[in-house]
Amino acid sequence: MTPTEPSIGTRQRFERPLRIRFGHCDPAGIVFFPQYFIMLNGLVEDWVTEGLSVSYAELLGPRRIGLPTVSLSSDFKSVSRMGDDVTLGLELAHLGTRSLTVAMDCRGADGELRMSAQQVIVCTSLDSHRAITMPPDLRSALEAFAQPVNVG
Amino acid sequence: MTPTEPSIGTRQRFERPLRIRFGHCDPAGIVFFPQYFIMLNGLVEDWVTEGLSVSYAELLGPRRIGLPTVSLSSDFKSVSRMGDDVTLGLELAHLGTRSLTVAMDCRGADGELRMSAQQVIVCTSLDSHRAITMPPDLRSALEAFAQPVNVG
Amino acid sequence: MTPTEPSIGTRQRFERPLRIRFGHCDPAGIVFFPQYFIMLNGLVEDWVTEGLSVSYAELLGPRRIGLPTVSLSSDFKSVSRMGDDVTLGLELAHLGTRSLTVAMDCRGADGELRMSAQQVIVCTSLDSHRAITMPPDLRSALEAFAQPVNVG
Amino acid sequence: MTPTEPSIGTRQRFERPLRIRFGHCDPAGIVFFPQYFIMLNGLVEDWVTEGLSVSYAELLGPRRIGLPTVSLSSDFKSVSRMGDDVTLGLELAHLGTRSLTVAMDCRGADGELRMSAQQVIVCTSLDSHRAITMPPDLRSALEAFAQPVNVG
Repeated sequence: MTPTEPSIGTRQRFERPLRIRFGHCDPAGIVFFPQYFIMLNGLVEDWVTEGLSVSYAELLGPRRIGLPTVSLSSDFKSVSRMGDDVTLGLELAHLGTRSLTVAMDCRGADGELRMSAQQVIVCTSLDSHRAITMPPDLRSALEAFAQPVNVG
Repeated sequence: MTPTEPSIGTRQRFERPLRIRFGHCDPAGIVFFPQYFIMLNGLVEDWVTEGLSVSYAELLGPRRIGLPTVSLSSDFKSVSRMGDDVTLGLELAHLGTRSLTVAMDCRGADGELRMSAQQVIVCTSLDSHRAITMPPDLRSALEAFAQPVNVG
Repeated sequence: MTPTEPSIGTRQRFERPLRIRFGHCDPAGIVFFPQYFIMLNGLVEDWVTEGLSVSYAELLGPRRIGLPTVSLSSDFKSVSRMGDDVTLGLELAHLGTRSLTVAMDCRGADGELRMSAQQVIVCTSLDSHRAITMPPDLRSALEAFAQPVNVG
Repeated sequence: MTPTEPSIGTRQRFERPLRIRFGHCDPAGIVFFPQYFIMLNGLVEDWVTEGLSVSYAELLGPRRIGLPTVSLSSDFKSVSRMGDDVTLGLELAHLGTRSLTVAMDCRGADGELRMSAQQVIVCTSLDSHRAITMPPDLRSALEAFAQPVNVG
């Protein structure tokens, strides 16, 4: 498994490898675009659990805190095909008190950008589905992730 | 089945009813957002086939013309739950020579906006996955759909 | 919408039409088989809500009663392609005190069998995920559905 | 990545780890059963590509050879929840000239059986969707995999 790695710049970046599956692809032989958002949700899950050390399953399970996406924008630049080994990457673009914005992308083995997405994720109570202030452990982990990486 | 209906304004609108399924929903008990894009792709398919009278299956099958989404933006305003009867709606926001922009939304039984999406869809060759000029039958059907509806 | 209709034999049958979508299909251009089980789950939902008049959404929501599949067998006889208009059908093959067995199929416009599945569905508590005795309203609706249809 | 490993018995076994995702789970908080078949299709892909050294993507792409499932039976023994780390395993149960039968399962971190499936997979031409004799490279790789592992 690939650990959290610094990006070329100084903003921290979390990455995971993924293989494009038959089930991700459509009759055109390429990834059906909603499948990218399913893949990227998996990246957010791994980032929260492994990158921030806050269990995503516990948050959404016993802690009853949801992390739904409230808005997104996305660009699809180049196709991905079945069998392609890609890298999914995530950076924290903005941190609020009840929401955060992540900038994510999918790149081919050669680093070529396949697609990118910016998602605003909000903390909610799973009982009311209303926005709530982020829990302190998630907040401080996000603040640490928001720190630039010391380079050189 | 609901036929194509004019919107409150004068821009033509294509609508279809849909029931939210168990399989659309996540452990939070609400629609998992990528499922909306799968539902909306079905709306685009029905619009092309029934609203524009150009067979979507023939386009993507024997005619080898793809209609991939190249960019999108979306807002999620209110949750949808299993069993909800919703209406998916589509209007044509922009018509180019090789691409079109559709504005779509999902509304509850009371008309409340659940989510909206704007998608840029481009005509491609399924052999090269490159953009191509829209075929004439699709183009003229889109031009007709782009005409305002006469009201009153 | 197609109402509940008697089968050729005397066993009651519940049917719903469905159009095969782009998103159901794989790079081979045909339905990716797990998508059939998602479609058939939608049929079970409609059957419970409309055929048995027991709200599926209330069962799994406020009533906290699950209806998971505990075993299944399935045969795939003939391919379905994007744009095909198919009919999903369901009959009750066995009724127990805590479980039921449904026999379902998908047929083309000409009645040709595309696939069939037999699923054992069990009533569970969504708190313990353990099997429970069927609630009386579901039980009596199932008993009525299990009655042969009077023919002629 | 876990390499191909011998099973406790002498039949060869191919295994891959997997984490249960939010998107695999339903409003009951557990894996929606069709998602298991999507996961297991990924296991078959990895087995063919990595375990048999025959590129699955090339088979279904340029070589135009499909590997659809023509029948399956499955039992669901115990629930899987979001965040669970499971192991998917595959053994070859039968090898024919145009088809093969795989026995697959999903087990929890403690080895507990979550579900099992037996699938008959047939080689087809993606042009005709008819069964064809297995290509020699796939056939000989399967024959090698069918050999018992020397133990002790």
